[in-house]
Amino acid sequence: MQSVQFTGETTSNGVVERDFTVGDIPGVLWSPASGPDRAPLVLMGHGGGTHKKWPAMTGRAHLLVTGCGFHVACIDAPGHGDRPRTAHDEQEIAALFKAREAGEPEGPIVVRYNAHLAERAVPEWQATLDALQELPEIGTQGPVAYFGLNMGTAIGVPLTAADPRITAAVFGLHWPDALAETAKLITIPIEFMLQWDDEHIPRESGLALFDAFASKEKTLHANAGRHKELPRFESDSAARFLARHLGRAVTSSA
Amino acid sequence: MQSVQFTGETTSNGVVERDFTVGDIPGVLWSPASGPDRAPLVLMGHGGGTHKKWPAMTGRAHLLVTGCGFHVACIDAPGHGDRPRTAHDEQEIAALFKAREAGEPEGPIVVRYNAHLAERAVPEWQATLDALQELPEIGTQGPVAYFGLNMGTAIGVPLTAADPRITAAVFGLHWPDALAETAKLITIPIEFMLQWDDEHIPRESGLALFDAFASKEKTLHANAGRHKELPRFESDSAARFLARHLGRAVTSSA
Repeated sequence: MQSVQFTGETTSNGVVERDFTVGDIPGVLWSPASGPDRAPLVLMGHGGGTHKKWPAMTGRAHLLVTGCGFHVACIDAPGHGDRPRTAHDEQEIAALFKAREAGEPEGPIVVRYNAHLAERAVPEWQATLDALQELPEIGTQGPVAYFGLNMGTAIGVPLTAADPRITAAVFGLHWPDALAETAKLITIPIEFMLQWDDEHIPRESGLALFDAFASKEKTLHANAGRHKELPRFESDSAARFLARHLGRAVTSSA
Repeated sequence: MQSVQFTGETTSNGVVERDFTVGDIPGVLWSPASGPDRAPLVLMGHGGGTHKKWPAMTGRAHLLVTGCGFHVACIDAPGHGDRPRTAHDEQEIAALFKAREAGEPEGPIVVRYNAHLAERAVPEWQATLDALQELPEIGTQGPVAYFGLNMGTAIGVPLTAADPRITAAVFGLHWPDALAETAKLITIPIEFMLQWDDEHIPRESGLALFDAFASKEKTLHANAGRHKELPRFESDSAARFLARHLGRAVTSSA
């Protein structure tokens, strides 16, 4: 088993941010600057074309650390951030840009490429989780959750179906094509976000993916607006959902 | 104009509960036992077959008063609570019970009867709001919101469309048949709740009513479960939605 190697550390606004690697996977772990010895862990998946320290990731991480006292980890997905791209990655990214320029639907390419990336990413996440649970401040007994939208859902759904350590998850903003069958295997509590006027993902497609989860407790949050207009208050809502299921009170006024 | 006549007062857990009448309409006003001179007002509509002090009403009222510092008012709908039933009321209620016993769909009767009740209830609510705004602790300048599910939505949608004083509303759990055209006139922020496995209201019907609102900011909360299984945490969510739009922070850990 590979262990966590810390490579850098900064602290701001009560949050310790530690860069790490597990093998050749680069990641970041955000933790409370002070607090109890152990705390639950939230795995955060970034969206396509972004990386582990994209503003949406650092923003949500600070919210979860300062509001709920959680540890939050994010790793670069294959071909993203500090990681090399394969020839196949380059090919798919070129196909996506070409479709966008031609005004053609990007859904078929995103669905296919994200499914490919998920196959590479799921074992990487599991190795990372193995290593993070060796840290004394996390441990193997504490609860683990997953929070990822867009590509973060394409990777998170198969990861959650494969790994029983994950006991609550926030998903959303994805097509059902490559995911619905896997979602049917998932029974943990789910909060699912979709945009009611998404110009990429047809409304019926988003609703079909939400419908597929076998979870007895699942909540859909659908907001008026286009694909990239997810309201900021949904991050607060996700924090409250995770706090409810990981057993922490939300302490900020968020 | 008729004014508010207070007929009784009790205090518990930081909440003053005052019974009142406006003309022959009986109501209840919940207020903070201590706080600033003026506070926003939430009008709360109860469900069919219940009344102004049904446990769901008093529970939500305490949440909104202690969590957000609001005033909360609820009046008995026509034919409900302390109010007399007309021959037409008796007829419709008998038809509903008959349909239930026969295992026939109750939707057509509920839709038709609620539309009738809304015609009687909207002017009553407007007279009540006129009177409540004469109270110094409410006033005519402060924001007003509406929160009502089931029959509370059947009455609240036409009320909100008719009365520009209402600037945010929580609706849900109703068929679109008699409401969708009116919902198209509503542009204020909306939070809308539906049950994903509602045995009375088909999923497509609930989604169609949410879709009808012209509001630029609207959020759908759809939860797994049957008609009466709306999760308790949606009351907390409604309180946060109202706090966001009426300009108050949620101070409880709810």
